[in-house]
Amino acid sequence: MTPNGKQSAPVKAPVGDSAKALRHAMSGLSGPQATGWTGAMESGGAPGEGVEVLILGAGVAGLTAAYELSVLGYEVTVLEAQNRVGGRNRTARKGDTLYELDEHGIPRLTHTCAFDDELYLNLGPGRIPYHHRRVLKYCRDFGVELEPYVMETTANLVRSPDAPVTWPNRRVANDTRGYLAEKLAENLLSLDTFTGELRDLLRAFGALDTNGKYRGSTRSGYLSLPEIGEFPVPAPPLSFEDLVNSGFWRARFYQPVDYLWQGTMFQPIGGMDHIVKALAREAKRAGATIVLGAEVVDIEITEEDGTGVEVGYRKGGVDYSAKARYCVSNIPFPVLRDIEQTNFSDAFRQAIRTVKFEKTCKVGWQANQRFWEGDLDRTYETEGIYGGISWTGHNITQLWYPSHDYFSDKGTLTGAYNFQKAADTLGGLAPDKRLKLAREGAIELHPEFKDKKLVPDDKGVTIAWHKVPYQLGGWAAWKPEDEEHKKAYRQLLQPEGHDAFYVTGDQISPLPGWQEGAMMSAQYIVQQILGIMPLSAPEEVAVPDSVALTQGLH
Amino acid sequence: MTPNGKQSAPVKAPVGDSAKALRHAMSGLSGPQATGWTGAMESGGAPGEGVEVLILGAGVAGLTAAYELSVLGYEVTVLEAQNRVGGRNRTARKGDTLYELDEHGIPRLTHTCAFDDELYLNLGPGRIPYHHRRVLKYCRDFGVELEPYVMETTANLVRSPDAPVTWPNRRVANDTRGYLAEKLAENLLSLDTFTGELRDLLRAFGALDTNGKYRGSTRSGYLSLPEIGEFPVPAPPLSFEDLVNSGFWRARFYQPVDYLWQGTMFQPIGGMDHIVKALAREAKRAGATIVLGAEVVDIEITEEDGTGVEVGYRKGGVDYSAKARYCVSNIPFPVLRDIEQTNFSDAFRQAIRTVKFEKTCKVGWQANQRFWEGDLDRTYETEGIYGGISWTGHNITQLWYPSHDYFSDKGTLTGAYNFQKAADTLGGLAPDKRLKLAREGAIELHPEFKDKKLVPDDKGVTIAWHKVPYQLGGWAAWKPEDEEHKKAYRQLLQPEGHDAFYVTGDQISPLPGWQEGAMMSAQYIVQQILGIMPLSAPEEVAVPDSVALTQGLH
Repeated sequence: MTPNGKQSAPVKAPVGDSAKALRHAMSGLSGPQATGWTGAMESGGAPGEGVEVLILGAGVAGLTAAYELSVLGYEVTVLEAQNRVGGRNRTARKGDTLYELDEHGIPRLTHTCAFDDELYLNLGPGRIPYHHRRVLKYCRDFGVELEPYVMETTANLVRSPDAPVTWPNRRVANDTRGYLAEKLAENLLSLDTFTGELRDLLRAFGALDTNGKYRGSTRSGYLSLPEIGEFPVPAPPLSFEDLVNSGFWRARFYQPVDYLWQGTMFQPIGGMDHIVKALAREAKRAGATIVLGAEVVDIEITEEDGTGVEVGYRKGGVDYSAKARYCVSNIPFPVLRDIEQTNFSDAFRQAIRTVKFEKTCKVGWQANQRFWEGDLDRTYETEGIYGGISWTGHNITQLWYPSHDYFSDKGTLTGAYNFQKAADTLGGLAPDKRLKLAREGAIELHPEFKDKKLVPDDKGVTIAWHKVPYQLGGWAAWKPEDEEHKKAYRQLLQPEGHDAFYVTGDQISPLPGWQEGAMMSAQYIVQQILGIMPLSAPEEVAVPDSVALTQGLH
Repeated sequence: MTPNGKQSAPVKAPVGDSAKALRHAMSGLSGPQATGWTGAMESGGAPGEGVEVLILGAGVAGLTAAYELSVLGYEVTVLEAQNRVGGRNRTARKGDTLYELDEHGIPRLTHTCAFDDELYLNLGPGRIPYHHRRVLKYCRDFGVELEPYVMETTANLVRSPDAPVTWPNRRVANDTRGYLAEKLAENLLSLDTFTGELRDLLRAFGALDTNGKYRGSTRSGYLSLPEIGEFPVPAPPLSFEDLVNSGFWRARFYQPVDYLWQGTMFQPIGGMDHIVKALAREAKRAGATIVLGAEVVDIEITEEDGTGVEVGYRKGGVDYSAKARYCVSNIPFPVLRDIEQTNFSDAFRQAIRTVKFEKTCKVGWQANQRFWEGDLDRTYETEGIYGGISWTGHNITQLWYPSHDYFSDKGTLTGAYNFQKAADTLGGLAPDKRLKLAREGAIELHPEFKDKKLVPDDKGVTIAWHKVPYQLGGWAAWKPEDEEHKKAYRQLLQPEGHDAFYVTGDQISPLPGWQEGAMMSAQYIVQQILGIMPLSAPEEVAVPDSVALTQGLH
């Protein structure tokens, strides 16, 4: 093993003999190059040869670490409390059972998913930005096919928090642009600084007429779809007063403008869980063992020099214990907190208690007709919504339309995705009451939701992630300005014991709530174990702004 | 046949006996309902039974009319001069031969397409807005599978006409928004009208800080992709002066904002020509005959009452003649002009000479590696471009990235799509010189184009639509303010003879250059023949603004 400092650009791993070439080929192009391992793989002696690693939790980070370490020759065992891999990466399909903890902490069945065959809905992560290169790379290497996820279309709706009206995105977006450009033109003109180039820019930016006035624009859509002998007439502009008074921007209207979201993103064809299934498959192929239904009950740093770990876990009512040189915990901090820890530092115990996890809920609907796509048979005068998100001031916050299987018969919709207080309210209700509230919010956007044959209650699902066993939250709610958070974040980037115990996950990454963060964290831990990354974090680390990273700037 | 006035909402056609039900089922859900036919289909007596119709030209409108009239029982023969259907709807694949007229009007081979198998490029229409309901409906009914066409991603580039720099879309778009919002905040503040709500809106609109200043935003992307311990840092904002001086908006930067384009649209999987292939297949299935290689040489309105047509055509060097009760011409006006016409009105002859057709060119490249998608193997610090368009002040005007087969090895790019003077310049060059000029424009955006192994000359194709035999242009360049155009447009909405001869196509629709316009026009003609639409156009018709409809507002 040759520690050789931080690698800014991972390079191809040298491959020695044919057995190693085969293993490399079998496990795809990810592997050593992903973690920067440039040391030679000695004949019969990969860096991890004979070294045991216990990984706690088969979420995205746990599985990524399991795969990468296995490829490097480590003897990896993953203990997963649930009977499935993936953690919050979960896709609901027919027959899936969802559990949440009741007020006594007892897991209770909330739903058995009753979607039709072939239908599915992502309950956790639902999209991948094109700059989340690790996610894209693992998908490509492991044959997880991607298709566009449409984040925004101009046919999406916005229902403003302060005005009981529903407008299409294009009218709100472009009429607002137009009026703001007009106002600027007026003010700059009056200040005698409205030069030719700036005037030209403002006209293009806001679709202003030659006098610098905004009189509506085809950007906002047509009054009606044109017929022969008619020219497309712009929809009359909404009034600026109505727009300003509606507070539409407080309904997250501008979220898709941010680099993390974008108009188009990616999603795996057939469901987000194809990613964790592929990671688990490749980790096992590289030699890892994944034990499902194994609930960790205590963790002890065993050796006097802090270079070993013993983990007690319960499976099928029986207690087991496992020892390893290294332990990587992908357990969410709110769960890890309550697991008995021996020989851990006070600083560590404090750190995992410092950051709270965000409350967040989703609702999923099956619709027996894709009414939002419009009726191509009845008239040419309606348009359709093909993907994207409608925003609302209602508790449900947002309604996602499917970005796949356009023009087919049925489909699933994300009927709520909310945070903080709204999630506390929704998650506090019984499952049937959640569906009732979500239906009310959806009806405000689409009256079709009144029809329970079209959108049946018994095919709806809900999830309150902060009540899900072994999860207890959506993501770590880091606050960059909080001094305690700075201390905790830095602490958690460093192993416990000398170099025995590591925490991983999006929870301790610059991208909380994103799979890219989970993979980045896993690769970082692997690099620490390899000696490529130092064990100690820099004095100054940047604490992520979880709200901005998960819910946009405002 | 029961003429019953204009139908604003086409309704389901009544289906009498099982034979008709079968025909209806065979031909999909389009058909009578698409054209508003609500009269009973008498047993053994559909409205067109025994009535012959000649359709000249198998473009989108000709094929649509052929299909709809055949379903209604008309005996339809389509004469197509070329050896393929589709007109400007053309997809280039390996072995396809492209011809253009030389300075003597002689067709010359410009390219034999040498793309690898499985690769293709749309030379004509390349995308479908979600509000072009006719196109979507025929696609659905005829099993033409659609996938998203990505019009814009924030990773696309813009190279300003007046500044030799290349910027990513997101920086130009969001820094401009930010500065404009900031300037408005300053001005409104100074005018003491910067109220709470407006201030709040401006901050959300432009990503301003609490003081109303724009200091950059993650909307414009990151300084670099984040690593563990780093928080995503916004790219430093471009200077407002540089943005204004660059004239970026004159490179069509805001075109995707218009309702006709949008961030996402649709494209048929495998090539746009699947639409015309499906239309031809279904027209034939419904009884139409399509004669390829049949060049129309003269058209005569034969009967004294103007209710019959005789068409002379040449096929394989032999002259033929065909008679019919109705004739529908999908021949582009610049071609129709030079076909001998007998018993046509002077007003008609004048009308088809009034509107000019736009010059337009496309260039197609095969790239042996999808370098624009970034290198997932080498580093996590580059991002990729997945679809969308880069804009440039260079002659090529725009560069389209493929919206399909992401993450695969090779791909095709639209290396130029230009109009007017730029198209005149490019189209005036020999094919190899066009590729040379297009490569220069592409190199300014992507230096990878310097590598002729990566993007080989011998796999490039070009097309100058204004030089293509039987086309002679991109689309009718209607000008709404031109009095002669108003007269001509109205004239061409009405048949010649009493009701014998009709012109169709996007050329005489509110959507020149768009397939929806072609289909709309075809349905209108069918309705005129059925008597559902009046033969005479209203006194006042709106003439389309072709430039706005094909190239955006500016």
